[in-house]
Amino acid sequence: MNENSDESPAVRLTARGVRTRARIVTAAAELMYVQGIGGTTLDDVIVASGASKSQFYRHFDDKHALVRAVVAQVGEDTIIRETNMLGNVSTLAGLRRWRDALVKANALRHGMYGCPLGSLANEVSDHDALARSMLEELFGTWQRLLNEALDRMKDTGVLAESADTTRLAVGFLASLQGGYLLAQTARDVEPMATAIDVALSHLESLTVQSRAAS
Amino acid sequence: MNENSDESPAVRLTARGVRTRARIVTAAAELMYVQGIGGTTLDDVIVASGASKSQFYRHFDDKHALVRAVVAQVGEDTIIRETNMLGNVSTLAGLRRWRDALVKANALRHGMYGCPLGSLANEVSDHDALARSMLEELFGTWQRLLNEALDRMKDTGVLAESADTTRLAVGFLASLQGGYLLAQTARDVEPMATAIDVALSHLESLTVQSRAAS
Repeated sequence: MNENSDESPAVRLTARGVRTRARIVTAAAELMYVQGIGGTTLDDVIVASGASKSQFYRHFDDKHALVRAVVAQVGEDTIIRETNMLGNVSTLAGLRRWRDALVKANALRHGMYGCPLGSLANEVSDHDALARSMLEELFGTWQRLLNEALDRMKDTGVLAESADTTRLAVGFLASLQGGYLLAQTARDVEPMATAIDVALSHLESLTVQSRAAS
Repeated sequence: MNENSDESPAVRLTARGVRTRARIVTAAAELMYVQGIGGTTLDDVIVASGASKSQFYRHFDDKHALVRAVVAQVGEDTIIRETNMLGNVSTLAGLRRWRDALVKANALRHGMYGCPLGSLANEVSDHDALARSMLEELFGTWQRLLNEALDRMKDTGVLAESADTTRLAVGFLASLQGGYLLAQTARDVEPMATAIDVALSHLESLTVQSRAAS
């Protein structure tokens, strides 16, 4: 993704400009996560980032441009985290550690605010075609990371040859996202943990070991 | 749910007042579904409903009150629909018909706007404690309808006695909600259909028939 695509084209950033822009995007991402995009004004962002109005408008034409920069930043953070967590997973135990890390992080907030990427997707997908296509690509990458982990589980003989890892990866990502939403609504991580656990149970039933035992 | 709890307490509605209020809530629900809550102003709602400003404020103190009335209305519509669709389900075929109806409705919109209830939950849960608790209750009712359908499948000998229908119902609702979100982001119903189908495959693996065959 070209992270400059949302900026005024003529801007050529100095090192200080890069830092100012990053500070604005970080402040905006935090505010939008907690207050929602609709509940966050540009004035909120300017105050929270410590930038001046003219500095802000040197980097962003309008709220759309800022939201796209937030999507790019939150997306990058999410994909780096998920690559670190899923990149070497090739066992059920490895997938359970991934589950534990996500559940623990969400439990700290009692489920509040949901998935950083999922919340953005819900709020912008119908209103900004460019942001939507960025989010579609990011979810695609996340799904591929899951798919590759499941494929490695097949290669190492954990998962049965017949397991459809592409469909399972969609199911996993949907369970995770739906779990985040139910946890956000319940202010309790429990439904998110349960949703992933049900998806993991399904995977367990598709292991070679479980097939042999039954 | 007491649907008057969000109104000015002193209002005693005439038949005409009831109709005006309903017209305002219907217009607001439609606008908020398509534009998001953050993207919908009270002026939008007043214009779309054909009500006057003074009529509007006779029924609603502010946007919070209106949003709660929308949550109550969308929630009631959702629960009535789900009760009709799930209330008599006691077979896998019945559950597949439920799946088909939801997928078909979402396909007509190419996944746009997501689940009416889920979208509201994402946007208000962190910002309005009363609306959040209404949504928690509504998701609880939806989950119970799924749970009861799964329990009937156990009673009729379709599902194995060992199936944990409470957890499975959470997993189903999460798959559905996450599927809605992925479909909204992809502008394509496919990931939502796949997410529910993966959940249905899991259920199939827990049928008495499948257990006997394996």
